[in-house]
Amino acid sequence: MKTSPTTDLSRLCVHTATTKPWKIEEAAKNYARTGVSGISVWQDSLEGRNAGKTGRMLRECGLKIVSYVRGGFFPATEAGDRLKAIGDNRKMIDEAAELGAPLLVLVCGAVPGQSLELSRRQIEDGLAAVLPHAEKSDILLGIEPLHPMYADSRSAINTLKQANDTAERFESRHLGVVIDVYHLWWDPDLQEQIARCGQNGNLLAFHICDWKTPTEDFLLDRGLMGEGCIDIKQIRRWVESAGFHGFHEVEIFSQRYWEMDQKIFLDQIVEAYSRHV
Amino acid sequence: MKTSPTTDLSRLCVHTATTKPWKIEEAAKNYARTGVSGISVWQDSLEGRNAGKTGRMLRECGLKIVSYVRGGFFPATEAGDRLKAIGDNRKMIDEAAELGAPLLVLVCGAVPGQSLELSRRQIEDGLAAVLPHAEKSDILLGIEPLHPMYADSRSAINTLKQANDTAERFESRHLGVVIDVYHLWWDPDLQEQIARCGQNGNLLAFHICDWKTPTEDFLLDRGLMGEGCIDIKQIRRWVESAGFHGFHEVEIFSQRYWEMDQKIFLDQIVEAYSRHV
Repeated sequence: MKTSPTTDLSRLCVHTATTKPWKIEEAAKNYARTGVSGISVWQDSLEGRNAGKTGRMLRECGLKIVSYVRGGFFPATEAGDRLKAIGDNRKMIDEAAELGAPLLVLVCGAVPGQSLELSRRQIEDGLAAVLPHAEKSDILLGIEPLHPMYADSRSAINTLKQANDTAERFESRHLGVVIDVYHLWWDPDLQEQIARCGQNGNLLAFHICDWKTPTEDFLLDRGLMGEGCIDIKQIRRWVESAGFHGFHEVEIFSQRYWEMDQKIFLDQIVEAYSRHV
Repeated sequence: MKTSPTTDLSRLCVHTATTKPWKIEEAAKNYARTGVSGISVWQDSLEGRNAGKTGRMLRECGLKIVSYVRGGFFPATEAGDRLKAIGDNRKMIDEAAELGAPLLVLVCGAVPGQSLELSRRQIEDGLAAVLPHAEKSDILLGIEPLHPMYADSRSAINTLKQANDTAERFESRHLGVVIDVYHLWWDPDLQEQIARCGQNGNLLAFHICDWKTPTEDFLLDRGLMGEGCIDIKQIRRWVESAGFHGFHEVEIFSQRYWEMDQKIFLDQIVEAYSRHV
């Protein structure tokens, strides 16, 4: 079935890391000009800025602040480093509140050579330590399962099932999961696990991009929607069937796109969104 | 607990692709000289050779032929290409029989942009088409689940659970699974799924190498055992608890190691095997 490209950009959000060469002020102005409705703010784009003032600037541009990215990284071999991570996460919860972002995205962390079981326990300890602060601040925490190719050093939580299991153990309205098609598209249990987090009220965010063939870099070669093998429309149907009607957040890390004129890239994002999401 | 390096090489097998710069005759001579007990033969290392004669040469060197690598690649968008893949697999079953290899390893295949569900159905159709020939030839077929980072173009079977599900559906003594630590180490269900394939008599082979941090190439940057984050000893205990007492097959694709003197590399393999497996 051939469908016309959508012209509805009311749920299109872009992560500041997607247009990394831009300062957040430039990003905001250009997102708004192009019709993008939401912005997810990476911590480095706040550097040297006041979070509250930046939040006001973004809202004055007409943008909705969707999420603050990214906390987590709880595991460490030294207890002092694990405590530091907890402190960093509390600080990010405060920054999210000042900014006016309802959600802090968590990349949970892993330590090369430390067993995944131990890293998972340290992640749960870290979540237990920061969740009360998130609840008090009314900031949602979203566990983002990362692709298994990042299990060595970035996250010991690599499937939506693991993220769901973890979120459910805490039984907190402030802890849920973040679905990123790049990390999860391959999972044979994806549809079932999306339905599960929907049922439990734990589906907090939906990130989109594409998986290129071949992918040439482990971190910085994500594709624009439609450029790869992920059936984003199908996964979108699954998250909507699960009751999610929030933003579609474009999160693309790509050396190739960062080297382009970012205005042209942003136009390509809008075009790709209209056709492939 | 500190343990002494093992000097028992009776279950050490090396894949010809691991020492790719060597012709199979050089590989055989050097493996035997170094005390390696088994060899797994990649199809390209037979090029221009008679499989039966090569098999005799390997046995005369004192090597046990462990497996023939690698069939599969069943999915394709065109029916003609799927038929061709079935023919290629039947030919590889014949070659395995001539060579004297008891097992043909299968990398099941995937097509970029074709849904994983459809690729999985085409894989089952392909298995159904070649299994009778394998049974008649008394060659085992081993489904090797590949890391999810290969789901776009190499295999739509990415977890041991999927491989077990598929193998069990056929209820054939000639179809089972191949466990490679590189593809599966991250999986939270790994121990349980290893026990399952052991119980069902489906655990046919055990491949080892390591996952480096950072990994710099999607295909050709595997690590030597001990060089990365995989707890190979633990996974070995799991496969042995599941009743597997076959070879430990070293399968390392590495541009860096292929550029080395292969004799020095082979000595490093033996040393790493003694310490980390």
